[in-house]
Amino acid sequence: MKFTKLFVLACAAFVGVSGVALAGDDALAPRQVPAKTLPVPTDVSPELQKLIAAPLNPSWNVLWTTGEQWRAAANAQAAKAMQTLPAMRERLGVTVQPNTINGVRVYVVTPDVIPADHHDKVLIHIHGGCYELYPGEAGTNEAVIMAGLGHYKVISVDYRMPPEGYFPAALDDVETVYKAVLRSNDAKNVGVFGTSAGGALVLELMLRAKQEGLQMPGAIAPGTPMSDLTKTGDSFYTNEKVDNVLVSRDGFCDAAAVVYAHGHDLKDPLLSPVYGDMRGFPPAILTTGTRDLLLSNTIRVHRKLREAGVDAQLEVFDGMSHAQYQMDDRIPETKEAFGEITEFFNRHLGH
Amino acid sequence: MKFTKLFVLACAAFVGVSGVALAGDDALAPRQVPAKTLPVPTDVSPELQKLIAAPLNPSWNVLWTTGEQWRAAANAQAAKAMQTLPAMRERLGVTVQPNTINGVRVYVVTPDVIPADHHDKVLIHIHGGCYELYPGEAGTNEAVIMAGLGHYKVISVDYRMPPEGYFPAALDDVETVYKAVLRSNDAKNVGVFGTSAGGALVLELMLRAKQEGLQMPGAIAPGTPMSDLTKTGDSFYTNEKVDNVLVSRDGFCDAAAVVYAHGHDLKDPLLSPVYGDMRGFPPAILTTGTRDLLLSNTIRVHRKLREAGVDAQLEVFDGMSHAQYQMDDRIPETKEAFGEITEFFNRHLGH
Repeated sequence: MKFTKLFVLACAAFVGVSGVALAGDDALAPRQVPAKTLPVPTDVSPELQKLIAAPLNPSWNVLWTTGEQWRAAANAQAAKAMQTLPAMRERLGVTVQPNTINGVRVYVVTPDVIPADHHDKVLIHIHGGCYELYPGEAGTNEAVIMAGLGHYKVISVDYRMPPEGYFPAALDDVETVYKAVLRSNDAKNVGVFGTSAGGALVLELMLRAKQEGLQMPGAIAPGTPMSDLTKTGDSFYTNEKVDNVLVSRDGFCDAAAVVYAHGHDLKDPLLSPVYGDMRGFPPAILTTGTRDLLLSNTIRVHRKLREAGVDAQLEVFDGMSHAQYQMDDRIPETKEAFGEITEFFNRHLGH
Repeated sequence: MKFTKLFVLACAAFVGVSGVALAGDDALAPRQVPAKTLPVPTDVSPELQKLIAAPLNPSWNVLWTTGEQWRAAANAQAAKAMQTLPAMRERLGVTVQPNTINGVRVYVVTPDVIPADHHDKVLIHIHGGCYELYPGEAGTNEAVIMAGLGHYKVISVDYRMPPEGYFPAALDDVETVYKAVLRSNDAKNVGVFGTSAGGALVLELMLRAKQEGLQMPGAIAPGTPMSDLTKTGDSFYTNEKVDNVLVSRDGFCDAAAVVYAHGHDLKDPLLSPVYGDMRGFPPAILTTGTRDLLLSNTIRVHRKLREAGVDAQLEVFDGMSHAQYQMDDRIPETKEAFGEITEFFNRHLGH
């Protein structure tokens, strides 16, 4: 008897599962989420598990406020990052040569093996780092992975960063290189890719190209783009202290971008491209992870592209924090992510 | 002087951002995430904001252990769900007729307007509800939305659920309908779709069809598929008590599925299709949200499909919990999600 009564009460309560009815107008209360423990996922590679298990980036709340401070920090970090580059180039059979194109510093990244149907193709790489980090050769990491795994020639742009140049200096430099590449290549044979701030710059370059009537490239690969500097997007909250690379919307990366913006409106589509008009963009592949602080910034760009009628492909990796797919060529998921990007460029470039 | 020393120390610490170096072998520690407050996202529609702001499903931890208990709860919920169906059918210009196909109960869902190039096409709908919920007409909600927004004729399968039938009864019924539909339709003109357990059943049907040498349909749309009953997948943890529909991997839905499984190995690909061989699957579109407890279950299937060489498209909506894209046809994001699915079926069916 007691069980029956309980059962009927529970059945009545259960109708709440339906969720079809909309909540009342005054119900926009935030959700309180208790503290939790996240085990390292068992469904990813052992190599990725190690990245996931790493503690929160100890520098996540370093908040420099000047270009000079950022450059000093960037130089210290770059020296460390560059220690891993020679071995990676060797593993992947890639050579890197510094050069300049119309005054802009670039690195030309060339794989030992370039298949015949890639001979007339070229990729432009725009490195990440919150518009402040990875100056010089340290910015070529992702370009080396792309060239080595995808067997494309890559031009990596060492664009100006503070204090050398503030908004829109980075975009200006990228555009200079893009225009030069267009002069000697059919636009449909050119791909543009980059991650984080580099992903944002890919999108900003498309907006700028539209403004100036330049031809669109054949395809783009904006990886986990820093597409919204206004701290809008659900994963800024859901993945706070879940992402062990960026950690928080109030962390180093947004602080760095603000220094680059230099007082300019952060909602300008040339700083927050999610607010731009994406009609006419070329086919795009986007990559992110479930723990990425910029998961929302990535999927929002994907939705905007789809709404604008663009052929846009989204790849999400389980357990990955921000940009972890492009940190080490030996991680199986890195090979998978760049396998997708390569296949996308193979399918779209030249058509 | 004091500032300089602090600055140098901070710069040294900052190199940790690189993250290129792998952590040590013994570093697979879980991540401790503090309690947090999640505001309702501002970048989604007001209608979706209301769904997001709803409190956690009050029945999330109802854990019935028998088919009879589940059926009683399902009937109570179905009565409530059905209250909203007549108005939705009216809004969308859709009629629903019960029927049987080779002994299996179905609902034939017909939109008032069917464009000429949809006349020779038909969609099979497999409803969700953890293999236990939404019996009878209550299971037609998503079929009505698809028929009304996509202008396809839909056959919605009212498959057996506990206590009427246990694993593999649901799959058997779906297969019976699929085989009957193949007898009067070219396979390439048939699409199959469903959400949650329905999304899993879509995938399970493909695995069964491969086993039995049946032709593959033209395209499938498994929405946020319940693809892994072993509680594996990162979002079971990251989105715990973030998703307000399923709430927890230890909640009602997995408990319900265990009753359906009836002692069968939960890792059998006909219960956890993420473990199945997806080579030869037809083109697939998957839909999920950033707060979905099954975000990982969805993106893992997407990755598996891509690895198997399948043309697979992934759509992720910001702030959405489990299956919220198919709860109410008036939500703009619902129109967007079914717009994508319709466009996908339009592109792939018949080819």
